[in-house]
Amino acid sequence: MDVYEAIARRRDVRAEFTGKVIDREMLLRILAAAHHAPSVGHSAPWDFVVIQDPATLERMAEHVRVKRREFADSLPPDRAATFDPIKIEGIRESGTGVVVTYDHSRGGEHVLGRHTIADTGLMSVALAIQNLWLAGVAEGVGVGWVSFYDESVLADIAGLPDGVRPIAWLCVGEVSEFAEVPDLERFGWRGRRPLEDSVHWGTYRAEG
Amino acid sequence: MDVYEAIARRRDVRAEFTGKVIDREMLLRILAAAHHAPSVGHSAPWDFVVIQDPATLERMAEHVRVKRREFADSLPPDRAATFDPIKIEGIRESGTGVVVTYDHSRGGEHVLGRHTIADTGLMSVALAIQNLWLAGVAEGVGVGWVSFYDESVLADIAGLPDGVRPIAWLCVGEVSEFAEVPDLERFGWRGRRPLEDSVHWGTYRAEG
Repeated sequence: MDVYEAIARRRDVRAEFTGKVIDREMLLRILAAAHHAPSVGHSAPWDFVVIQDPATLERMAEHVRVKRREFADSLPPDRAATFDPIKIEGIRESGTGVVVTYDHSRGGEHVLGRHTIADTGLMSVALAIQNLWLAGVAEGVGVGWVSFYDESVLADIAGLPDGVRPIAWLCVGEVSEFAEVPDLERFGWRGRRPLEDSVHWGTYRAEG
Repeated sequence: MDVYEAIARRRDVRAEFTGKVIDREMLLRILAAAHHAPSVGHSAPWDFVVIQDPATLERMAEHVRVKRREFADSLPPDRAATFDPIKIEGIRESGTGVVVTYDHSRGGEHVLGRHTIADTGLMSVALAIQNLWLAGVAEGVGVGWVSFYDESVLADIAGLPDGVRPIAWLCVGEVSEFAEVPDLERFGWRGRRPLEDSVHWGTYRAEG
């Protein structure tokens, strides 16, 4: 599939998982795509923990339910009403969770390009996630990034050692379709910012 | 170009810029690709400041030279010798710098999915950068992420208001070719980690 087409079709999937668990070869192809992302100092600071055990998926889903309620309770009433019908995870339905992690110690003391900006390590992990996401689209595989969790709980679920930080829970599974419109637009949570507002020529101009 | 092919061919470009400045339509296509990245709560917290003025490019290049010396001086002698021939930027040669920024205030107080993990905003920006990078490959356009800078200096160069953080300087320009092997491998700085080491089944296993 063409790069631009994959970028346009990609969605943050929650509702469209078919329930069919992705086969291991296909999963390894998209993990290999993630692993070919650029990273600061060629450090590849990411790891991928693949979780398919139904009891573990349920444990994560239950934790996310708690965090969802917490967020709902923090909202003013009108926003809470908008939020209410929005599905925020497809943990069990996808059949596969990929916990993506970050190890700041990878690459040793002198990571080329990280001495100035410490966050470049963390951002490298996000680059890998986007590769995974787009390779998924090319395979007809949906990906949904779930961030409604406490890091300590997810670290425990994925068996992470000290110093390895969980960055994302990705629901990964076959989808019936990719929705035309992102869920958060469709449910009126937030529209897409116009590209023109995001592009500045020569210098940043304030909005308004 | 096929997604997997773009992922495989993509390089962090420093030396292969032809000097031809990218035309505005092509640049807007790859910025549009970046802008179609997923973002936490659909907040699109990124902006893109396009810098093509030669004097401004030279100002950035000179700052990066200073930061490069600083890094070289921090290395033990053998690593300093390995680092010495490695080119770390193509700021003037590319002809275009795209400063990618992050605005934590975008999306208001209640960003869906960010109440638990504050860094999801920052990571959204990296997802956009990876879209830009891959769209570039499809267009024959190279991208090189430069991180050898002080944020305050880059904020000044790009005219950023308070609260808008510079995340990356991307050198963007036509390339003669995409190198077969990443520079940091080619120059013996660091090899690629095997995929098998990065993939864990069920739970994270310690290395060794």
